[in-house]
Amino acid sequence: MKTEVNRRKFIKTTTAAGVGLSLMGFPNLVTGKDDRKVRMALIGVGLRGRNHLHLLLQRSDTKVVAICDIDPEALAKARNMIKDAGKKAVKEFTGSETAYKKMLEEDNIDGVVISTPWLWHTRMAVDTMKAGKYAGVEVSAANTLEECWDLVNTHEATGMPVMILENVCYRRDVMAVLQMVRNGLFGELVHLECGYQHDLREVKFNNGKQPYGGGVEFGDKGYSEARWRTYHSIYRNGDIYPTHGAGPAAQFININRGNRFDYLTSTASKARGLHEYIVEKGGEDHPNADIKFKLGDVITTVIRTVNGETITVQHDTNLPRPYSLGFRVQGTKGIWMDLNDSIYIEGRSQPHRWEPDKAYMEEYDHPLWKKYETQAAGAGHGGMDFFVMNAFVESIKRQAPTPLDAYDAAAWSAITPLSEQSIAGGSEPVAFPDFTRGQWMKRKPVFALNDEY
Amino acid sequence: MKTEVNRRKFIKTTTAAGVGLSLMGFPNLVTGKDDRKVRMALIGVGLRGRNHLHLLLQRSDTKVVAICDIDPEALAKARNMIKDAGKKAVKEFTGSETAYKKMLEEDNIDGVVISTPWLWHTRMAVDTMKAGKYAGVEVSAANTLEECWDLVNTHEATGMPVMILENVCYRRDVMAVLQMVRNGLFGELVHLECGYQHDLREVKFNNGKQPYGGGVEFGDKGYSEARWRTYHSIYRNGDIYPTHGAGPAAQFININRGNRFDYLTSTASKARGLHEYIVEKGGEDHPNADIKFKLGDVITTVIRTVNGETITVQHDTNLPRPYSLGFRVQGTKGIWMDLNDSIYIEGRSQPHRWEPDKAYMEEYDHPLWKKYETQAAGAGHGGMDFFVMNAFVESIKRQAPTPLDAYDAAAWSAITPLSEQSIAGGSEPVAFPDFTRGQWMKRKPVFALNDEY
Repeated sequence: MKTEVNRRKFIKTTTAAGVGLSLMGFPNLVTGKDDRKVRMALIGVGLRGRNHLHLLLQRSDTKVVAICDIDPEALAKARNMIKDAGKKAVKEFTGSETAYKKMLEEDNIDGVVISTPWLWHTRMAVDTMKAGKYAGVEVSAANTLEECWDLVNTHEATGMPVMILENVCYRRDVMAVLQMVRNGLFGELVHLECGYQHDLREVKFNNGKQPYGGGVEFGDKGYSEARWRTYHSIYRNGDIYPTHGAGPAAQFININRGNRFDYLTSTASKARGLHEYIVEKGGEDHPNADIKFKLGDVITTVIRTVNGETITVQHDTNLPRPYSLGFRVQGTKGIWMDLNDSIYIEGRSQPHRWEPDKAYMEEYDHPLWKKYETQAAGAGHGGMDFFVMNAFVESIKRQAPTPLDAYDAAAWSAITPLSEQSIAGGSEPVAFPDFTRGQWMKRKPVFALNDEY
Repeated sequence: MKTEVNRRKFIKTTTAAGVGLSLMGFPNLVTGKDDRKVRMALIGVGLRGRNHLHLLLQRSDTKVVAICDIDPEALAKARNMIKDAGKKAVKEFTGSETAYKKMLEEDNIDGVVISTPWLWHTRMAVDTMKAGKYAGVEVSAANTLEECWDLVNTHEATGMPVMILENVCYRRDVMAVLQMVRNGLFGELVHLECGYQHDLREVKFNNGKQPYGGGVEFGDKGYSEARWRTYHSIYRNGDIYPTHGAGPAAQFININRGNRFDYLTSTASKARGLHEYIVEKGGEDHPNADIKFKLGDVITTVIRTVNGETITVQHDTNLPRPYSLGFRVQGTKGIWMDLNDSIYIEGRSQPHRWEPDKAYMEEYDHPLWKKYETQAAGAGHGGMDFFVMNAFVESIKRQAPTPLDAYDAAAWSAITPLSEQSIAGGSEPVAFPDFTRGQWMKRKPVFALNDEY
């Protein structure tokens, strides 16, 4: 009951105030006159964490105050980055898997960026919220349905925001298409497609010294993501990385804000790619050649929403292929696909012919991109990393809810366990929990409504 | 039991002889010395039937001996075509929906081409086989699971072939990709995609005078396909036209020949396109604006095969969009997609980059296309119509099984009723019947193995 009460209180507060939780000690900087910097800490400063660190060190409105990692090498690299940026040394937390809890006890931290192996995401985000700090958590945010609920319930109990750091929501073409959607260019949306289609064989296996390739080791003998990510391919069969596609798709059709995911089915192909890769690169006699990978090479998930849209989400990381998130946005007036960078808008395009989407991308370029183009240029993943971190920092500044929130994190991440359940049940349909407990009917879109953040 | 006996006999005969059923009265023309022409009849000489008629009139090895249609206008147009081709007038059958049965009693017919509304396909094909004639039936071949069985059981009982006239199996790029598949270019196949994505709004509605558009009428007030096809959008919710995608996909992975469709799930989006079209073109007060269309605008079906491949099949005919069958062929060594006319082959393509498929299409151009390129040029649908009719005629000449057969017709067409069942059950998984009754384990691929037909 406590959760419910707090949830109501949170919603009431945020709804009434428009912006501002007014629940925390951080001064409101909306006026822009306060020159205090947002004090940031990072849990996990591996490759991904250091990318975020780089962005935070570049900003004039943030101050990195603490870093945490169990890996001394990663910690040393982060330390050097801070030094090279001309900043003072920051507090470091290390030595055990729970050292981050010690860091969360510090009272000079406003926001925490979590870039750790997947299995740590939820518990760290939960502990961050409980410590009264903004949590920014890398994707996916949760591994099980229970963890999805943990995010939601902790958010509601503490009143603290958790933002899923889904950078693809900020991809330039994706945001331009969102503007097109909001301007009615596609009419009423009917069908979407997306997915994570990325040959990760050199990420899942390496030689223990370099992050990408050079060998077929993983786990204790691997390096970087191969140390932990590969296990998910051995033990799980489902869409284990759904949010790069599902996040943007959710924005297009206002999931949790007037709409919600209703149910899904998921179907896995046979698993061949990883075994073949090991045999090819490491030989038949390599011990890893005996591993049976559970993860189907291509996982196809079809979601239906309560408003009647369908969304196809694919996971395809074990086979040789060019990278593609495979976006498709289709409505009663037109269709866009990113594979061929083409669009068709009835009455504007030549009948029955694709036209290049370039002119549309320029015409509907999102105000955020127009404003921050220069700053974003240096950031990772074509600039989108800048925007997701910017949104997190600006939310903290304003003491406002984050544009991607606990319900988003839960609904998008839930695709993984639901997909596993569907596949285990012979592609049986599986219902999404309503993480908003009915509030989706009243909640309004907030993502990227203007050029603020 | 009779069916089973006859089926065994049929299989034994065809397996033993390699070619030739030796069950019929038509002389074997394999030697090429017999100048008798294959005697063809057509049921249905509307737009599609006349396309086939045109091809048959052009051939030097066929003689059209009878035509049948209930529509006097269609019949007159066909009659004129025959006259304009300098041929003698042929017998005509008309006056009732069952006039074709009278035609099937004629003993000078070797093969019958069936291009009628969908609901007539199976019964006409069944009656044709029962009359001891080769049946060539337009797609889809069946509307219900019972009809799928009717095709199979009648084929087995009579020993007569039925060929589903799936022209896309003969599309030039599709056949080249089949050659690539057979040459191992993609390694072991893992995932396929295909679909019928074709804005048919101007087919489903017209002004009763022209076949495409100009009004929002259908049924008795419509013309051509709008007279019957549109009803399927009102009363059915499923993939009502699956074979243009599923046929080629089935060839890539040897369905019914070492593999088979195991089960599918199907999910329908909301239905908006047809209603909006009526309102836009005919106004809110047009009586057709009150119709509730049951057919979701985009139907996404995911099939899993017993060999572990997954196939996504889409049906998308109610929305403004460029035509695309959306093919994707993906294996352990590479991937091809037709939307961007691109391919990626590990070790040959630049790492992680699409390359245009043009050079591959030339390198793997199918022997049939090389041989018949000139003849095919004039035929419909980019030439592929030539090949499907050629295969039907050449099969009759040789008294051989058709390369696409009753089991193909049944398995591919079954997607429609199974998809409807899945959608009605909230996307529940639905098993495919094994129309081969286990023979798929022994049957070998026969489609387009060389440049014969």
